[in-house]
Amino acid sequence: MVRLRGFQKLVTIEEAKKLFFNSLKIGRRKTEIVSVWCALNRVLAEDIIAEEDLPRFDRSAVDGYAVRAEDTFGASQFKPRTLKLTNASELESGEAKQVWTGNPLPKGSDAVLMLENVKPIGDSQIEVWTAVTPGENVSKRGEDIAKGEVAVKAGTRLKPHHLALISALGKSEVKVFEKPKVAILATGNELVEVGEKPREDQIYETNRVLLASLCHELGAQPIDLGIAKDNVEEISEKLKHGLEKADAVITTGGTSVGASDLVPTAINRLGEPGVLIHGVAMRPAMPTALAIVNDKPIIVLSGNPVAAFFGFEVFTRPLILKMLGVENEPRPVVTARLTRRTSTALGRKTFVRVRVFQQNGEFFAEPISARGSGIISTLTRANGYVIVPENREGLEEGETVQVHLFDSLEVSGGNV
Amino acid sequence: MVRLRGFQKLVTIEEAKKLFFNSLKIGRRKTEIVSVWCALNRVLAEDIIAEEDLPRFDRSAVDGYAVRAEDTFGASQFKPRTLKLTNASELESGEAKQVWTGNPLPKGSDAVLMLENVKPIGDSQIEVWTAVTPGENVSKRGEDIAKGEVAVKAGTRLKPHHLALISALGKSEVKVFEKPKVAILATGNELVEVGEKPREDQIYETNRVLLASLCHELGAQPIDLGIAKDNVEEISEKLKHGLEKADAVITTGGTSVGASDLVPTAINRLGEPGVLIHGVAMRPAMPTALAIVNDKPIIVLSGNPVAAFFGFEVFTRPLILKMLGVENEPRPVVTARLTRRTSTALGRKTFVRVRVFQQNGEFFAEPISARGSGIISTLTRANGYVIVPENREGLEEGETVQVHLFDSLEVSGGNV
Repeated sequence: MVRLRGFQKLVTIEEAKKLFFNSLKIGRRKTEIVSVWCALNRVLAEDIIAEEDLPRFDRSAVDGYAVRAEDTFGASQFKPRTLKLTNASELESGEAKQVWTGNPLPKGSDAVLMLENVKPIGDSQIEVWTAVTPGENVSKRGEDIAKGEVAVKAGTRLKPHHLALISALGKSEVKVFEKPKVAILATGNELVEVGEKPREDQIYETNRVLLASLCHELGAQPIDLGIAKDNVEEISEKLKHGLEKADAVITTGGTSVGASDLVPTAINRLGEPGVLIHGVAMRPAMPTALAIVNDKPIIVLSGNPVAAFFGFEVFTRPLILKMLGVENEPRPVVTARLTRRTSTALGRKTFVRVRVFQQNGEFFAEPISARGSGIISTLTRANGYVIVPENREGLEEGETVQVHLFDSLEVSGGNV
Repeated sequence: MVRLRGFQKLVTIEEAKKLFFNSLKIGRRKTEIVSVWCALNRVLAEDIIAEEDLPRFDRSAVDGYAVRAEDTFGASQFKPRTLKLTNASELESGEAKQVWTGNPLPKGSDAVLMLENVKPIGDSQIEVWTAVTPGENVSKRGEDIAKGEVAVKAGTRLKPHHLALISALGKSEVKVFEKPKVAILATGNELVEVGEKPREDQIYETNRVLLASLCHELGAQPIDLGIAKDNVEEISEKLKHGLEKADAVITTGGTSVGASDLVPTAINRLGEPGVLIHGVAMRPAMPTALAIVNDKPIIVLSGNPVAAFFGFEVFTRPLILKMLGVENEPRPVVTARLTRRTSTALGRKTFVRVRVFQQNGEFFAEPISARGSGIISTLTRANGYVIVPENREGLEEGETVQVHLFDSLEVSGGNV
């Protein structure tokens, strides 16, 4: 194959990932202590273990009256029993105390009568219409989380509900992993910084802001290395700087074998083992290369923004999650029916951009067609992608597909 | 119904939303200018219109040779045509120029031959094995976005791919809506600040961190009003302060009618129209109240964290999205099969927490059971919820359900 003459071999995504991640030693992750108020979306670095029962006391699960269950035995609407109201912190036999949801149960009581099963008689007595068993309508101490139990596991991405549970255990700070630092370098003589005035044959550099935002979304800290000219010396110099400052480096451009392989050449000058994989059987993002230099990963993405997006999706996303210690964080998946046929190339895993929308309660996926994968609007018109395996030449109209969402679903009627 | 004696009337979620949002005037939203580097997840306040074509010039969609298509007519492997290589910026008849994907087409050329259909002869000529038609393998000027076209619409939540497209149009800054300010007040004598030492009958206050994080996730700016005692004066004072500083206020606790309706009473002292709805036919979060004071919305949530979560989900989430001008941003939805029966109450829309996981490629939803809705771990053990309508008493084992995800799916094998 003339076109791919420079690629050592086109490998599948699975082979590439296996070789890359097996070759990579991810060192001891650094941690830091942050307030629960600032911990949203950070990744927990230690198990949160309950030091006390939650709740710390038996509490009422309803609005009603705390009682000794045995005082209600035999009560019915036809044969009510009468109990004396008290405000004391301890209940004697024959007494009841009004409680609201969440209130601790007074000593001596072991059940709660719901309001609707009780008739107040003046201010000092209630008529009980039903019997309760010991423990009824009571949230037992430790029912939520028992002392010594793991409440939230290390490696959890902290969402609002995790922070609520951690707070409920009395912890105001958590140990989280530091954000991995990812340095980003764009290469190409044709690139000009957004905001500057391009010459006739120049284009605005857009991949750094794309990749930096993708890093932010995952909880990594991007470091901008700017733009390098198509020059091995300059690329090497900037890569070296990135490897010193960051935990991983991403580059874009200068990987297409045709354009003379500048980035892979620059990488191989910097250290061992260098470029492990160059050329992956996927579309877009075929020219992606994966490298390791002095134990630090370098992911070489296409200069084409759509290919850079999918190269990031397939290789950088799992790398960052691994650096963060997050084991399981796939994109949301929705099942949808394809609105029309779409064709793909045999022998390449293809990422078809689709727009998923809801109609009459059902989800449909409309393929976004475009000739070149340089067409950024194929991403902005889509909200997800479908993966077509290597052994298929496309997808049929009406076929049921799994869509991986990278943006919001479109539902009929909107939010409100 | 004794239990609900204080609620004027239990209304459905739909009735409550309609009345609340119809009564609410959301004023002119304030905007600000931010760099594309800082615009992730902000909401665009103006249409982004292309001032130039994207791409700005016809460019090659492949690696190959730019030619005049007519020079290739009739060429085949049996009858190749020979073209002369040039490096000039303009192509004469009979000439070809090497180009890489994305390069501008030289003047005079109108098509690109792919590398595999060409055989170089020395350094100065190529043998052409196939004919191309004008426009073949060319990305036409304006093909991505044409000059004057709306590239990204106002109201779009800016994701990495939107920022890439905006950059590609040469814009380094965008006008976004200011983050709506949402003040959060917790009420309850039993509450103690996390980090302090609780008395025997006190519990840690966890709802403010929960609600502040939920606000952050949606792109609102939470303002902490702290904890108020169960005292109408104190609650009024803090609410007033919140209404002055913020665009909306959320409270938790003091809404259960039993516990004496402190927050609704305090709200009704502050201005018109006051509390519009108190008591919604949903589980959890039945005691939720909705109010408007001097055109500012107040959402009164249960003190129970799980009920506060669902009250926020159903009422505060759409409110914040509306304040941000975002029309369509539902939670991701996944279709799954229920692993076991779950029962719910008739006449209440019920939010059943479930854990969705993947097994043999299929998604299953396991209901997380718990007695009280005060059990926060029912949220942390779940990653989504299923809505059971008012006219059903539960869901059957094996039933296909739509799960609304508030955390990551669990997939077999993890990420890598």
